[in-house]
Amino acid sequence: MAERFDVDLNGKKRLPLTPVESTVIAARTGWSHLLKAGQYLRVTDPLGKQAADFWAFNAGDLDEHLSAMHTRVWVNKLCPQPGESFHTNYRRPILQLITDTCGVHDLLTAACDEHRYRLYGVQGDHPSCVGNLRKVMRAHVPGRIHVPQPVNLFMNVTVFPDGRVETGINPSKPGDFVVFKAWIDCIVAISACPQEFNPVAGWYPSDLHVAIYEGG
Amino acid sequence: MAERFDVDLNGKKRLPLTPVESTVIAARTGWSHLLKAGQYLRVTDPLGKQAADFWAFNAGDLDEHLSAMHTRVWVNKLCPQPGESFHTNYRRPILQLITDTCGVHDLLTAACDEHRYRLYGVQGDHPSCVGNLRKVMRAHVPGRIHVPQPVNLFMNVTVFPDGRVETGINPSKPGDFVVFKAWIDCIVAISACPQEFNPVAGWYPSDLHVAIYEGG
Repeated sequence: MAERFDVDLNGKKRLPLTPVESTVIAARTGWSHLLKAGQYLRVTDPLGKQAADFWAFNAGDLDEHLSAMHTRVWVNKLCPQPGESFHTNYRRPILQLITDTCGVHDLLTAACDEHRYRLYGVQGDHPSCVGNLRKVMRAHVPGRIHVPQPVNLFMNVTVFPDGRVETGINPSKPGDFVVFKAWIDCIVAISACPQEFNPVAGWYPSDLHVAIYEGG
Repeated sequence: MAERFDVDLNGKKRLPLTPVESTVIAARTGWSHLLKAGQYLRVTDPLGKQAADFWAFNAGDLDEHLSAMHTRVWVNKLCPQPGESFHTNYRRPILQLITDTCGVHDLLTAACDEHRYRLYGVQGDHPSCVGNLRKVMRAHVPGRIHVPQPVNLFMNVTVFPDGRVETGINPSKPGDFVVFKAWIDCIVAISACPQEFNPVAGWYPSDLHVAIYEGG
């Protein structure tokens, strides 16, 4: 179990949080959990340079989900800053970004999927973030879900003034983490990205740590 | 009916195209049509400054659609340039951008919807691009569709080096147009954006013209 954790709210106060759940997401696999309104989720990149593809769905209506294109319109930025919130396709806040020790995340890029690895020339099965999401969501909903655009935590995508978009090495240092607070009951899902053909997992996919906290 | 039309393929040759269908999309309304593989679609902004929210679905499987997040990964740009193609969520090309007299389009922003106008404080019904899409897609599929991210033709969204995103006045001049060529049979859908609360329709929503051509 994770230890107690103090969260810094923009330097204003530190709130002691009590862990209620924690786990390791093994490299190349997925995880999902109910995050109740008011609970905190901490996602840590223990070894650095590892992308965490992240989704959040309204637990009461999975058609409503964190949406990159609606979040951008709300915050007028490519990615929210601490204090700002991610929004849903129904234009409601779903998660507030509380702490971010890395500062670089991507809301432009699709999650890797079976089609991507087929295009690389991979034969047979290869784990993918979409595959991991579909697998872990089966605990919450039967049948095939729509896959929203992920928040690619710790992923480094630069937009140049001429409109070029370039994926670089993830800047996350060992132990970098983000903390979210849920505005509504939601199902959160994470894939430890199994991508070895570009630098989003530092070429060597590794584990992620997650913990859910209460209090504050 | 639209007139015959010569298309310029990057200065290499001009192909005479024959119109098979053309119409006016009245301000604030939507339109959709089957675009067969090899056919061309021309979308014109006759008065200028008018956003055209644009979607394309595989006619044989509506779960496959033009996807902004997958297109970005393929072209490594925020928006394809003439010659490049828009891709689907199955990572296949669906439409090639042939001609673009405007050069400014947005693949970052959600279509306006009932929630957006409710947040502005509008009481009662207000047309929206999502509402227009749902309405015109009823001719092709029963029930509620998933709404993918649109391509917002002629819409001007600037990304600043610090990650800020700003919607400006549409730069399209009267008569500016884009031409697409279909790689697969697809259902194309367009909403003449009814937004009067920001400058994407030049504050006064206006008509669009569309035409489908064969030949070339």
